[in-house]
Amino acid sequence: MSGKFIVIEGLEGAGKSSAIAVVKAAIEQAGHTLVCTREPGGTPMAEAIRECVKHDWQEQVTVEAELLLMYAARVQLLANVIKPALEQGQWVLGDRHDLSSQAYQGGGRQIPETMLESLRAISLKGFKPDLTLYLDVEPSAGLARARGRGALDRIELSGLDFFTRTRDRYLQLAAQDPSIKVIDAMQDMPAVHAQIRKELQGFLA
Amino acid sequence: MSGKFIVIEGLEGAGKSSAIAVVKAAIEQAGHTLVCTREPGGTPMAEAIRECVKHDWQEQVTVEAELLLMYAARVQLLANVIKPALEQGQWVLGDRHDLSSQAYQGGGRQIPETMLESLRAISLKGFKPDLTLYLDVEPSAGLARARGRGALDRIELSGLDFFTRTRDRYLQLAAQDPSIKVIDAMQDMPAVHAQIRKELQGFLA
Repeated sequence: MSGKFIVIEGLEGAGKSSAIAVVKAAIEQAGHTLVCTREPGGTPMAEAIRECVKHDWQEQVTVEAELLLMYAARVQLLANVIKPALEQGQWVLGDRHDLSSQAYQGGGRQIPETMLESLRAISLKGFKPDLTLYLDVEPSAGLARARGRGALDRIELSGLDFFTRTRDRYLQLAAQDPSIKVIDAMQDMPAVHAQIRKELQGFLA
Repeated sequence: MSGKFIVIEGLEGAGKSSAIAVVKAAIEQAGHTLVCTREPGGTPMAEAIRECVKHDWQEQVTVEAELLLMYAARVQLLANVIKPALEQGQWVLGDRHDLSSQAYQGGGRQIPETMLESLRAISLKGFKPDLTLYLDVEPSAGLARARGRGALDRIELSGLDFFTRTRDRYLQLAAQDPSIKVIDAMQDMPAVHAQIRKELQGFLA
Protein backbone atom coordinates (compact mmCIF):
# COMPACT_ATOMS: atom_id res chain seq x y z
CA MET A 1 0.00 0.00 0.00
CA SER A 2 1.34 3.43 -0.83
CA GLY A 3 1.44 6.38 1.56
CA LYS A 4 -0.34 9.72 1.37
CA PHE A 5 1.03 13.18 0.62
CA ILE A 6 -0.49 15.97 2.73
CA VAL A 7 0.47 19.61 2.18
CA ILE A 8 0.09 22.70 4.38
CA GLU A 9 -0.27 25.94 2.46
CA GLY A 10 -0.86 29.59 3.33
CA LEU A 11 0.45 33.13 3.35
CA GLU A 12 3.23 34.31 5.66
CA GLY A 13 1.91 34.43 9.22
CA ALA A 14 -0.99 32.07 8.51
CA GLY A 15 0.22 29.68 11.21
CA LYS A 16 1.75 26.94 9.07
CA SER A 17 4.30 25.85 11.66
CA SER A 18 1.81 25.09 14.41
CA ALA A 19 -0.58 23.51 11.88
CA ILE A 20 2.25 21.22 10.79
CA ALA A 21 2.79 20.14 14.42
CA VAL A 22 -0.92 19.31 14.73
CA VAL A 23 -1.02 17.30 11.50
CA LYS A 24 2.23 15.52 12.34
CA ALA A 25 0.86 14.40 15.73
CA ALA A 26 -2.42 13.19 14.19
CA ILE A 27 -0.73 11.17 11.43
CA GLU A 28 1.78 9.58 13.78
CA GLN A 29 -1.02 8.79 16.26
CA ALA A 30 -2.76 6.94 13.44
CA GLY A 31 0.34 4.74 13.22
CA HIS A 32 1.91 6.01 10.00
CA THR A 33 5.61 6.67 9.49
CA LEU A 34 5.94 10.30 8.46
CA VAL A 35 8.48 12.22 6.38
CA CYS A 36 8.34 16.03 6.65
CA THR A 37 9.44 18.24 3.75
CA ARG A 38 9.59 21.93 3.00
CA GLU A 39 9.62 23.78 -0.33
CA PRO A 40 11.65 25.08 -1.87
CA GLY A 41 14.23 22.71 -0.37
CA GLY A 42 14.34 19.31 1.25
CA THR A 43 17.36 17.76 -0.51
CA PRO A 44 20.94 19.10 -0.48
CA MET A 45 20.59 20.31 -4.09
CA ALA A 46 17.09 21.73 -3.52
CA GLU A 47 18.33 23.59 -0.42
CA ALA A 48 21.14 25.12 -2.51
CA ILE A 49 18.48 26.19 -5.04
CA ARG A 50 16.42 27.63 -2.15
CA GLU A 51 19.44 29.76 -1.20
CA CYS A 52 19.57 31.08 -4.79
CA VAL A 53 15.88 32.04 -4.60
CA LYS A 54 16.00 33.63 -1.15
CA HIS A 55 19.35 35.45 -1.43
CA ASP A 56 19.31 39.23 -1.66
CA TRP A 57 21.02 39.52 -5.08
CA GLN A 58 22.40 42.85 -6.32
CA GLU A 59 20.82 42.22 -9.74
CA GLN A 60 17.30 42.11 -11.15
CA VAL A 61 15.83 38.73 -10.15
CA THR A 62 13.42 37.94 -13.00
CA VAL A 63 10.06 36.36 -12.25
CA GLU A 64 10.92 33.67 -14.79
CA ALA A 65 14.17 32.69 -13.05
CA GLU A 66 12.43 32.61 -9.67
CA LEU A 67 9.77 30.33 -11.12
CA LEU A 68 12.23 28.00 -12.89
CA LEU A 69 14.26 27.64 -9.68
CA MET A 70 11.15 26.80 -7.65
CA TYR A 71 10.31 24.00 -10.09
CA ALA A 72 13.91 22.74 -10.25
CA ALA A 73 13.89 22.38 -6.44
CA ARG A 74 10.46 20.72 -6.58
CA VAL A 75 11.57 18.10 -9.12
CA GLN A 76 14.59 17.20 -6.96
CA LEU A 77 12.44 16.83 -3.84
CA LEU A 78 9.83 14.79 -5.68
CA ALA A 79 12.35 12.37 -7.23
CA ASN A 80 14.61 11.95 -4.19
CA VAL A 81 12.27 12.23 -1.20
CA ILE A 82 8.51 12.42 -1.78
CA LYS A 83 8.01 9.64 -4.36
CA PRO A 84 10.42 7.13 -2.74
CA ALA A 85 8.74 7.67 0.66
CA LEU A 86 5.22 7.23 -0.74
CA GLU A 87 6.28 4.10 -2.61
CA GLN A 88 7.57 2.64 0.66
CA GLY A 89 4.18 3.28 2.27
CA GLN A 90 5.35 6.26 4.34
CA TRP A 91 3.27 9.40 4.62
CA VAL A 92 4.71 12.75 3.58
CA LEU A 93 3.81 16.09 5.14
CA GLY A 94 4.82 19.06 3.01
CA ASP A 95 5.39 22.62 4.18
CA ARG A 96 4.26 24.10 0.81
CA HIS A 97 4.19 22.39 -2.60
CA ASP A 98 3.02 23.29 -6.10
CA LEU A 99 -0.01 25.29 -4.94
CA SER A 100 2.44 27.91 -3.59
CA SER A 101 3.86 28.46 -7.08
CA GLN A 102 0.37 28.72 -8.52
CA ALA A 103 -0.69 31.25 -5.85
CA TYR A 104 2.52 33.29 -5.40
CA GLN A 105 3.92 33.26 -8.91
CA GLY A 106 0.64 32.89 -10.80
CA GLY A 107 -1.53 35.10 -8.57
CA GLY A 108 1.00 37.35 -6.83
CA ARG A 109 3.49 37.84 -9.67
CA GLN A 110 0.77 37.49 -12.34
CA ILE A 111 2.68 34.94 -14.41
CA PRO A 112 0.35 33.61 -17.14
CA GLU A 113 -1.36 30.30 -16.39
CA THR A 114 -0.12 28.79 -19.68
CA MET A 115 3.47 29.24 -18.46
CA LEU A 116 2.73 27.58 -15.12
CA GLU A 117 0.88 24.79 -16.86
CA SER A 118 3.93 24.07 -19.05
CA LEU A 119 6.19 23.95 -16.00
CA ARG A 120 3.80 21.67 -14.13
CA ALA A 121 3.72 19.32 -17.12
CA ILE A 122 7.53 19.27 -17.34
CA SER A 123 8.13 18.92 -13.61
CA LEU A 124 5.24 17.06 -12.00
CA LYS A 125 3.84 14.94 -14.84
CA GLY A 126 0.43 14.79 -13.16
CA PHE A 127 1.64 14.16 -9.61
CA LYS A 128 -0.43 15.94 -6.94
CA PRO A 129 -0.98 15.83 -3.16
CA ASP A 130 -3.74 13.65 -1.70
CA LEU A 131 -4.83 16.47 0.61
CA THR A 132 -3.93 20.15 0.93
CA LEU A 133 -4.86 22.22 3.98
CA TYR A 134 -4.84 25.89 3.01
CA LEU A 135 -4.69 28.20 6.04
CA ASP A 136 -6.58 31.30 5.00
CA VAL A 137 -5.74 34.67 6.59
CA GLU A 138 -6.26 38.31 5.64
CA PRO A 139 -2.90 39.35 4.11
CA SER A 140 -2.51 42.34 6.45
CA ALA A 141 -3.08 40.16 9.53
CA GLY A 142 -0.67 37.49 8.30
CA LEU A 143 2.05 40.00 7.48
CA ALA A 144 1.66 41.66 10.89
CA ARG A 145 2.19 38.26 12.55
CA ALA A 146 5.19 37.48 10.28
CA ARG A 147 6.75 40.87 11.00
CA GLY A 148 6.36 40.18 14.70
CA ARG A 149 8.65 37.15 14.52
CA GLY A 150 11.60 38.83 12.74
CA ALA A 151 13.03 40.01 9.44
CA LEU A 152 11.07 39.42 6.24
CA ASP A 153 12.85 37.97 3.19
CA ARG A 154 12.81 39.24 -0.42
CA ILE A 155 9.52 37.54 -1.32
CA GLU A 156 7.91 38.52 1.99
CA LEU A 157 8.72 42.18 1.22
CA SER A 158 6.63 42.17 -1.98
CA GLY A 159 3.82 44.35 -0.58
CA LEU A 160 0.16 44.01 0.33
CA ASP A 161 -1.23 43.99 -3.25
CA PHE A 162 1.01 41.05 -4.04
CA PHE A 163 -0.28 39.07 -1.06
CA THR A 164 -3.89 40.01 -1.79
CA ARG A 165 -3.55 38.62 -5.34
CA THR A 166 -1.81 35.53 -3.88
CA ARG A 167 -4.65 34.90 -1.41
CA ASP A 168 -7.30 35.41 -4.11
CA ARG A 169 -5.61 32.76 -6.25
CA TYR A 170 -5.38 30.33 -3.32
CA LEU A 171 -9.12 30.68 -2.70
CA GLN A 172 -9.94 30.42 -6.40
CA LEU A 173 -7.90 27.20 -6.77
CA ALA A 174 -9.39 25.74 -3.58
CA ALA A 175 -12.90 26.36 -4.94
CA GLN A 176 -12.05 24.26 -8.02
CA ASP A 177 -10.33 21.33 -6.30
CA PRO A 178 -12.02 19.24 -3.62
CA SER A 179 -8.64 17.94 -2.38
CA ILE A 180 -7.83 21.48 -1.16
CA LYS A 181 -9.54 22.30 2.16
CA VAL A 182 -9.78 25.92 3.31
CA ILE A 183 -9.04 26.37 7.03
CA ASP A 184 -10.17 29.69 8.52
CA ALA A 185 -6.90 30.76 10.13
CA MET A 186 -8.33 34.08 11.38
CA GLN A 187 -9.96 32.11 14.22
CA ASP A 188 -8.13 31.66 17.52
CA MET A 189 -5.57 28.89 17.53
CA PRO A 190 -7.60 26.16 19.33
CA ALA A 191 -10.42 26.65 16.79
CA VAL A 192 -7.96 26.51 13.85
CA HIS A 193 -6.41 23.32 15.17
CA ALA A 194 -9.83 21.79 15.80
CA GLN A 195 -10.82 22.48 12.19
CA ILE A 196 -7.54 20.93 10.97
CA ARG A 197 -8.12 17.80 13.09
CA LYS A 198 -11.66 17.52 11.75
CA GLU A 199 -10.52 17.67 8.10
CA LEU A 200 -7.84 15.10 8.85
CA GLN A 201 -10.18 12.75 10.71
CA GLY A 202 -12.29 12.31 7.62
CA PHE A 203 -9.11 11.69 5.65
CA LEU A 204 -7.42 9.31 8.10
CA ALA A 205 -10.60 7.27 8.62
CA MET B 1 22.04 51.34 -33.31
CA SER B 2 21.90 48.13 -31.31
CA GLY B 3 24.78 45.66 -30.94
CA LYS B 4 25.07 42.08 -32.14
CA PHE B 5 25.06 38.84 -30.16
CA ILE B 6 27.53 36.24 -31.38
CA VAL B 7 27.72 32.79 -29.78
CA ILE B 8 30.42 30.11 -29.85
CA GLU B 9 29.10 26.57 -29.48
CA GLY B 10 30.58 23.09 -29.54
CA LEU B 11 31.34 19.90 -27.67
CA GLU B 12 34.01 19.64 -24.99
CA GLY B 13 37.45 19.86 -26.60
CA ALA B 14 36.13 21.53 -29.78
CA GLY B 15 38.43 24.52 -29.23
CA LYS B 16 35.92 27.09 -27.98
CA SER B 17 38.44 29.04 -25.90
CA SER B 18 40.83 29.78 -28.72
CA ALA B 19 37.90 30.46 -31.08
CA ILE B 20 36.60 33.03 -28.58
CA ALA B 21 39.99 34.76 -28.58
CA VAL B 22 39.92 34.95 -32.39
CA VAL B 23 36.36 36.34 -32.52
CA LYS B 24 37.07 38.80 -29.70
CA ALA B 25 40.09 40.21 -31.55
CA ALA B 26 38.15 40.52 -34.82
CA ILE B 27 35.19 42.32 -33.25
CA GLU B 28 37.39 44.71 -31.27
CA GLN B 29 39.47 45.39 -34.37
CA ALA B 30 36.25 46.38 -36.13
CA GLY B 31 35.83 49.05 -33.43
CA HIS B 32 33.00 47.54 -31.37
CA THR B 33 32.87 47.50 -27.58
CA LEU B 34 32.53 43.86 -26.55
CA VAL B 35 31.01 42.11 -23.55
CA CYS B 36 31.96 38.44 -23.09
CA THR B 37 29.58 36.00 -21.36
CA ARG B 38 29.53 32.32 -20.52
CA GLU B 39 26.62 29.99 -19.88
CA PRO B 40 25.45 28.83 -17.52
CA GLY B 41 26.66 31.84 -15.53
CA GLY B 42 27.66 35.44 -16.14
CA THR B 43 25.83 37.18 -13.27
CA PRO B 44 26.33 36.52 -9.54
CA MET B 45 22.99 34.68 -9.33
CA ALA B 46 23.58 32.78 -12.59
CA GLU B 47 27.04 31.72 -11.36
CA ALA B 48 25.42 30.38 -8.14
CA ILE B 49 22.97 28.44 -10.33
CA ARG B 50 25.94 27.17 -12.39
CA GLU B 51 27.45 25.81 -9.17
CA CYS B 52 24.18 23.96 -8.48
CA VAL B 53 24.30 22.39 -11.95
CA LYS B 54 27.99 21.43 -11.90
CA HIS B 55 28.25 20.24 -8.29
CA ASP B 56 28.71 16.52 -7.65
CA TRP B 57 25.51 15.99 -5.62
CA GLN B 58 24.99 12.80 -3.59
CA GLU B 59 21.42 12.54 -4.92
CA GLN B 60 19.77 11.78 -8.26
CA VAL B 61 20.06 14.94 -10.37
CA THR B 62 16.97 14.79 -12.58
CA VAL B 63 17.21 15.84 -16.23
CA GLU B 64 14.28 18.19 -15.59
CA ALA B 65 16.01 20.02 -12.72
CA GLU B 66 19.21 20.35 -14.75
CA LEU B 67 17.22 21.84 -17.61
CA LEU B 68 15.21 24.24 -15.43
CA LEU B 69 18.42 25.49 -13.79
CA MET B 70 20.05 26.09 -17.18
CA TYR B 71 17.11 28.24 -18.24
CA ALA B 72 16.95 30.09 -14.90
CA ALA B 73 20.61 31.07 -15.33
CA ARG B 74 19.97 32.04 -18.97
CA VAL B 75 17.07 34.35 -18.08
CA GLN B 76 19.20 36.13 -15.47
CA LEU B 77 22.07 36.63 -17.93
CA LEU B 78 19.73 37.83 -20.66
CA ALA B 79 17.94 40.38 -18.45
CA ASN B 80 20.98 41.69 -16.59
CA VAL B 81 23.83 41.50 -19.12
CA ILE B 82 23.05 40.54 -22.72
CA LYS B 83 19.98 42.71 -23.43
CA PRO B 84 21.25 45.85 -21.64
CA ALA B 85 24.58 45.61 -23.51
CA LEU B 86 22.90 45.15 -26.91
CA GLU B 87 20.57 48.06 -26.22
CA GLN B 88 23.60 50.26 -25.49
CA GLY B 89 25.08 49.30 -28.87
CA GLN B 90 27.72 46.97 -27.41
CA TRP B 91 28.43 43.60 -28.97
CA VAL B 92 28.12 40.44 -26.89
CA LEU B 93 30.20 37.30 -27.37
CA GLY B 94 28.71 34.26 -25.68
CA ASP B 95 30.55 31.10 -24.64
CA ARG B 96 27.45 28.91 -25.18
CA HIS B 97 23.78 29.96 -25.22
CA ASP B 98 20.44 28.28 -25.89
CA LEU B 99 21.74 26.00 -28.64
CA SER B 100 23.70 24.14 -25.93
CA SER B 101 20.47 23.26 -24.11
CA GLN B 102 18.89 22.13 -27.35
CA ALA B 103 21.90 19.96 -28.23
CA TYR B 104 22.94 18.64 -24.79
CA GLN B 105 19.56 18.34 -23.07
CA GLY B 106 17.42 17.79 -26.17
CA GLY B 107 19.88 15.62 -28.14
CA GLY B 108 22.17 14.20 -25.45
CA ARG B 109 19.64 13.69 -22.66
CA GLN B 110 16.78 13.07 -25.12
CA ILE B 111 14.39 15.54 -23.48
CA PRO B 112 11.33 15.94 -25.74
CA GLU B 113 11.36 18.96 -28.03
CA THR B 114 7.93 20.10 -26.75
CA MET B 115 9.43 20.53 -23.27
CA LEU B 116 12.37 22.55 -24.60
CA GLU B 117 10.01 24.62 -26.72
CA SER B 118 7.93 25.51 -23.64
CA LEU B 119 11.03 26.55 -21.73
CA ARG B 120 12.32 28.64 -24.63
CA ALA B 121 8.94 30.40 -24.82
CA ILE B 122 8.96 31.09 -21.07
CA SER B 123 12.60 32.17 -20.89
CA LEU B 124 13.65 33.72 -24.19
CA LYS B 125 10.39 35.05 -25.65
CA GLY B 126 11.78 34.86 -29.18
CA PHE B 127 15.23 36.29 -28.42
CA LYS B 128 18.05 34.65 -30.40
CA PRO B 129 21.70 35.30 -31.33
CA ASP B 130 22.57 37.15 -34.54
CA LEU B 131 25.27 34.61 -35.36
CA THR B 132 26.31 31.27 -33.90
CA LEU B 133 29.62 29.61 -34.75
CA TYR B 134 29.35 25.89 -34.03
CA LEU B 135 32.75 24.19 -33.79
CA ASP B 136 32.17 20.67 -35.02
CA VAL B 137 34.40 17.82 -33.80
CA GLU B 138 34.10 14.05 -33.63
CA PRO B 139 33.00 13.38 -30.02
CA SER B 140 35.88 10.95 -29.37
CA ALA B 141 38.47 13.47 -30.59
CA GLY B 142 36.92 16.29 -28.54
CA LEU B 143 36.76 14.19 -25.39
CA ALA B 144 40.39 13.10 -25.83
CA ARG B 145 41.43 16.78 -26.03
CA ALA B 146 39.25 17.69 -23.01
CA ARG B 147 40.67 14.81 -20.98
CA GLY B 148 44.15 16.00 -21.83
CA ARG B 149 43.60 19.32 -20.09
CA GLY B 150 42.34 17.93 -16.74
CA ALA B 151 39.40 16.52 -14.83
CA LEU B 152 36.01 16.20 -16.53
CA ASP B 153 32.87 17.40 -14.70
CA ARG B 154 29.57 15.56 -14.19
CA ILE B 155 28.15 16.46 -17.62
CA GLU B 156 31.46 15.79 -19.36
CA LEU B 157 31.44 12.26 -17.87
CA SER B 158 28.17 11.34 -19.60
CA GLY B 159 29.77 8.98 -22.13
CA LEU B 160 30.36 8.80 -25.88
CA ASP B 161 26.76 7.96 -26.88
CA PHE B 162 25.59 11.09 -25.09
CA PHE B 163 28.07 13.27 -26.99
CA THR B 164 27.27 11.58 -30.30
CA ARG B 165 23.58 12.40 -29.84
CA THR B 166 24.54 15.95 -28.81
CA ARG B 167 26.67 16.46 -31.93
CA ASP B 168 23.94 15.03 -34.18
CA ARG B 169 21.46 17.54 -32.73
CA TYR B 170 23.91 20.42 -33.22
CA LEU B 171 24.34 19.51 -36.90
CA GLN B 172 20.60 18.99 -37.40
CA LEU B 173 19.78 22.42 -35.89
CA ALA B 174 22.55 24.10 -37.91
CA ALA B 175 21.10 22.64 -41.11
CA GLN B 176 17.75 24.30 -40.34
CA ASP B 177 19.01 27.74 -39.27
CA PRO B 178 21.18 29.91 -41.55
CA SER B 179 22.36 31.99 -38.56
CA ILE B 180 24.25 28.92 -37.29
CA LYS B 181 27.56 28.38 -39.15
CA VAL B 182 29.33 25.02 -38.89
CA ILE B 183 33.11 25.36 -38.45
CA ASP B 184 35.11 22.19 -39.17
CA ALA B 185 37.09 22.00 -35.92
CA MET B 186 38.84 18.75 -36.91
CA GLN B 187 41.17 20.84 -39.12
CA ASP B 188 44.44 22.16 -37.72
CA MET B 189 44.14 25.32 -35.65
CA PRO B 190 45.23 27.89 -38.28
CA ALA B 191 42.65 26.48 -40.72
CA VAL B 192 39.90 26.56 -38.04
CA HIS B 193 40.74 30.16 -37.18
CA ALA B 194 40.83 31.14 -40.86
CA GLN B 195 37.35 29.67 -41.33
CA ILE B 196 36.08 31.57 -38.28
CA ARG B 197 37.54 34.85 -39.57
CA LYS B 198 35.97 34.25 -42.97
CA GLU B 199 32.48 33.70 -41.45
CA LEU B 200 32.93 36.80 -39.32
CA GLN B 201 34.17 38.96 -42.17
CA GLY B 202 30.93 38.50 -44.03
CA PHE B 203 29.09 39.33 -40.85
CA LEU B 204 31.17 42.36 -39.81
CA ALA B 205 31.11 43.84 -43.31
